[in-house]
Amino acid sequence: MSDRPDTYDVIVLGAGPVGENVVGRVVAGGLTAAIVEKRLAGGECSYYACIPSKALLRPMDLAAEVGRMPGLSLGPVDAAAVLARRDEAIGHLDDAEQVGWIESVPAALFRGHGRLAGPRRVEVTGPDGGVRTLTARHAVVVATGSTPSVPDVPGLRAARPWTNREATTAREIPRRLVVIGGGVVACEMAQALRFLGAAATVMLVRGRRLLGRTEPFAGGLVAASLRDAGIDVRFGESVARVERPAPGGPVTVHTTSGARLEADEILVATGREPAVRDIGLETVGLSPGGPLEVGDDLRVTAVPEGWLYAAGDVNGRNLLTHMGKYQARVCGDVIVARAKGRPEDAPGLRAVADALGPPQVIFTDPQVAAVGRTEEQARAEGFPVRVVEYDIGNVSGAYLLGDGYTGRAKAVVDEEHRILLGVTFVGPGVGELLHAATVAVTARVPLDRLWHAVPAFPTVSEIWLRLLEEYGL
Amino acid sequence: MSDRPDTYDVIVLGAGPVGENVVGRVVAGGLTAAIVEKRLAGGECSYYACIPSKALLRPMDLAAEVGRMPGLSLGPVDAAAVLARRDEAIGHLDDAEQVGWIESVPAALFRGHGRLAGPRRVEVTGPDGGVRTLTARHAVVVATGSTPSVPDVPGLRAARPWTNREATTAREIPRRLVVIGGGVVACEMAQALRFLGAAATVMLVRGRRLLGRTEPFAGGLVAASLRDAGIDVRFGESVARVERPAPGGPVTVHTTSGARLEADEILVATGREPAVRDIGLETVGLSPGGPLEVGDDLRVTAVPEGWLYAAGDVNGRNLLTHMGKYQARVCGDVIVARAKGRPEDAPGLRAVADALGPPQVIFTDPQVAAVGRTEEQARAEGFPVRVVEYDIGNVSGAYLLGDGYTGRAKAVVDEEHRILLGVTFVGPGVGELLHAATVAVTARVPLDRLWHAVPAFPTVSEIWLRLLEEYGL
Repeated sequence: MSDRPDTYDVIVLGAGPVGENVVGRVVAGGLTAAIVEKRLAGGECSYYACIPSKALLRPMDLAAEVGRMPGLSLGPVDAAAVLARRDEAIGHLDDAEQVGWIESVPAALFRGHGRLAGPRRVEVTGPDGGVRTLTARHAVVVATGSTPSVPDVPGLRAARPWTNREATTAREIPRRLVVIGGGVVACEMAQALRFLGAAATVMLVRGRRLLGRTEPFAGGLVAASLRDAGIDVRFGESVARVERPAPGGPVTVHTTSGARLEADEILVATGREPAVRDIGLETVGLSPGGPLEVGDDLRVTAVPEGWLYAAGDVNGRNLLTHMGKYQARVCGDVIVARAKGRPEDAPGLRAVADALGPPQVIFTDPQVAAVGRTEEQARAEGFPVRVVEYDIGNVSGAYLLGDGYTGRAKAVVDEEHRILLGVTFVGPGVGELLHAATVAVTARVPLDRLWHAVPAFPTVSEIWLRLLEEYGL
Repeated sequence: MSDRPDTYDVIVLGAGPVGENVVGRVVAGGLTAAIVEKRLAGGECSYYACIPSKALLRPMDLAAEVGRMPGLSLGPVDAAAVLARRDEAIGHLDDAEQVGWIESVPAALFRGHGRLAGPRRVEVTGPDGGVRTLTARHAVVVATGSTPSVPDVPGLRAARPWTNREATTAREIPRRLVVIGGGVVACEMAQALRFLGAAATVMLVRGRRLLGRTEPFAGGLVAASLRDAGIDVRFGESVARVERPAPGGPVTVHTTSGARLEADEILVATGREPAVRDIGLETVGLSPGGPLEVGDDLRVTAVPEGWLYAAGDVNGRNLLTHMGKYQARVCGDVIVARAKGRPEDAPGLRAVADALGPPQVIFTDPQVAAVGRTEEQARAEGFPVRVVEYDIGNVSGAYLLGDGYTGRAKAVVDEEHRILLGVTFVGPGVGELLHAATVAVTARVPLDRLWHAVPAFPTVSEIWLRLLEEYGL
C-alpha cells in the first residue's frame, strides 16, 4: 500500500458496481483513480442482492414453466445444488475476480473505511487501524450505496433478523419463516425461499398491496401467485414485538393485529437507507441524514466548487443497480469532460433517464417489468393520460409457452404527444420484454411510428400489437 | 349461401391470417367484406406452420434450459402429450373458431375455390361444384399465401415426401428421417422431430451454411447445436434420386455425393412459391408465375384503376406471418381511405417496414432473432457500415439462466447517421429480445439516445449496454 501515490485525479468511496463503473470511465478518459472499499469489492449487488437472488429464483421460474408444459415432468428439486450454484455465482464471497478487474483498469484499490476529510481529501482507515490521507485533483465520488433499514420494534434488532444479506446467502433454508415487508426483496425472497423449502412462510405487509410503487394490478397478480405457492400473505399487519430467547433459536413474532407466530427465522425487508453515516460529510459542510442530493450531472448540489459527486443508491434517485451504473457512466464522463475542459453539452453528460422513470424487473413469478411512469404518477404530474391494457395470456406466443399463462400489460399514453409515458408487463418471463418499452419511452417514439415496429410472430412481444390495436391504431 | 348478397365493398381471396386481418380492418372502417377460402379458415400459420411448429419446439427449449440448470432434473419426455398439446393448439384441424371470428367481424365467408373473373369480379366454385360470381365495389385483395416447392428430382414427388404440413401435424415420429434443405423450416423441424424421437436424422444442405439469409454466425451456431443433438448435417449435398417402392414404406435417398440413405420419411423444406396458380390472374391481364408485385400501398402495380391488391406471401415481399398481417393492416386501411375519399398520407398507409428488413425469430435452440439488414446487405446497399459484436454468454443475465449459455449479438451501424441498420441475436430464448431492436431500427433511434435506454439488471437485455460500450459510447 505504501508504495502507491497519495494523490489521484479521482477518488471513489465504495467499490460496488457504481464505484467500479466510475473508475472504469474516468481511467478510460485518461484520468487516474483510486477506489476505497471496506467490504467486498463488487458491492451488494454481486454478493447479497441481484446476483444471488436471481440465482435462487431462476430454478423456481423454470420449474413453474415445466409445470405448465404437458409432456415434461420434473424430478425432485435438489435445493443443495441450487445453493451451490448460488455460491458459485457470488464467487463464494471472495472478491478476487473483482479486485483483479479493478487492478486491470488500472485503478488503485484501498481496502478500509473511507471518510471525507475536507475538500478533495479522503481519509482511509485500513484493516490494521492505520490511517492514510488521499487527495483528489478533480473529484471525489461517493458511491457507498445503501443499507437495509430495520424498524424500531421491541426485540427486533436483538433477535438479529435476516436482511437481504442473510436471505440471499442462506446456507440452510428455515422451515418456518416470517417476512416483514411487501416490496421487491420481500416478494422475491419469500417466493425463492418457499420454493427451496420454507414450507411455512408468513408475509406481514403493513399496507394493502404488494410492490407499492408499481401499477396496482402487478402487486395483485404477485400476491395471488405467492398465495398459490402456499405463502400466507397478510395485509394491514406488521410486527409489534419480537422474542428470541436463545440466539439462533426459534423466534416469536407478535403482530400488530395480535397474532403470535413461531418461526425459525425473520426476514426484514422494509426498505433501505442511503449509506451516509460515518463518511465525513460534516467535514465538507453537509449533515449526514438523507440521501446526497445531486443534479443530472451527479454533482452534489450543496457543495461549492463542484468537486463532490454522488452516484447510485446514496443519492436516493432510485435503488437499482443498472441505474446506479448508468449514473456512474454519466458521472465519470462529466468528470473527464470537466477535467479536460471539454464542452458539457455532449449527449451522454446528463442522467436524463432517471426522470423518465427507471426500468425495473422484479423477478417474482410472475415477473413484473415496468418503465416510466405509472398511471397514477402520470396523472399526478398533470399529463393528459390515456391508458390501454391487455391480457398477455391472449397472445398466441404466451399460449405456446404453456397452459394457463396469466399476465397483463398496461401502457400509459401521453395523449398530447402520442408517446408512451410508461409501460408495465406482468407475467412469466416478461423481463426481456421490457427493453423495447425502455427504448420507446426513452426515445419518445410516437405511437404512429411504433405501429410499424412489427413484433415477430409468435412471440410474447406481440402484446405490442395488441396494445396499439386497443389504443385504436 | 344463397341468401347472401353477391356484391361487397371488398372481396378477399384467402382466409389465412392475412385475409382475416384485411377483412377485420375494412369492416372496422365501415365497409362490407367477403372472404373466400377453399381450405381451413386460419391458413397455413394456424395449422401447418408457426403455431404447431412452436408447440413442438417449446418443450424442446424448456428441456434444454432445465438441462443447463443444476438442481433441476427432467423425467422422460412424453412425446404423445406434446403431440396432444400441438393438436389442441391447431384446434384439431377444425376451423370452427376461426369461422366464428370471421362471422363476428362480420364478414361473409364463402367456402370454395376463388378465381378472379375480370375486373372486380370473383368466381367461387363451391365444394358441391356450384359456381357463384361475386362483385367488389372497391377492391379485391389476393391473400392466397404460398405453397411449398418440391424440387424436380427423379422419384421425389412420387415418394410423397413430407412438407411443412405433414411435419408439423405428424401423428407418429419417424425414427429415420432425411431432411432436404437448410432454411428455417428444415432447421426447426429437424430439431423438433429429433427431440420427439427421430433418432437418425440426416439433413442435406445444398449450400455451405444454414439459414442463408441471416448473419453467417447464426447458421454456424445452429449447425453446432443440431450436431450436438445428434443430427447428421451434411453441407454441399442434396438429393439426386429417391425410391419408395411401397407407399408409406421405407424410402431410399440417393444423394448428389453418391451416398445412399435409408429412411422412414423425407421432409422437403427447400422454399416456397407464391400461390398464384388457378386464381384467374389471366382474366385481369396478368400472367401467373412469380409473386404479384405491389407498391408500399399493397396495390398490384400492373393492374390499372387500382382495384387489385395483394398482401402476404403471395406478393413475395417476405414470407413471414407477422409481416403479412402488417401488410394486411396497411392494405385494409388504404382501401378504406380510398373508399371514403380520405387523404392517403396518414402514417399507417404505407408498408414502410418491409424495406427496413423485417423482424424474424427462428425458434431453433439456439434461437435466431434478427431485424433489419445484415452486414452483407448493408454493405451491398452502400451504407457506411460499422459492426459491433458481443458474446451474450458474458452478460450476467445469461449466466443466471444456466450453465454454458452460448450466444452472440451483432449490430450493424450506419456510421453517417449513427443509427442501427440491423441487429441479430443468437442464443437460447433471445426471441423476446428482438422487439427492442425492431423499435430502434424502425424508429431510427440514434445511438446517443439508445445510450440512455438502460437495460434492467440482471436481464439478458444488458447485451444492449455491452454492444453500445463496444461501439465506444
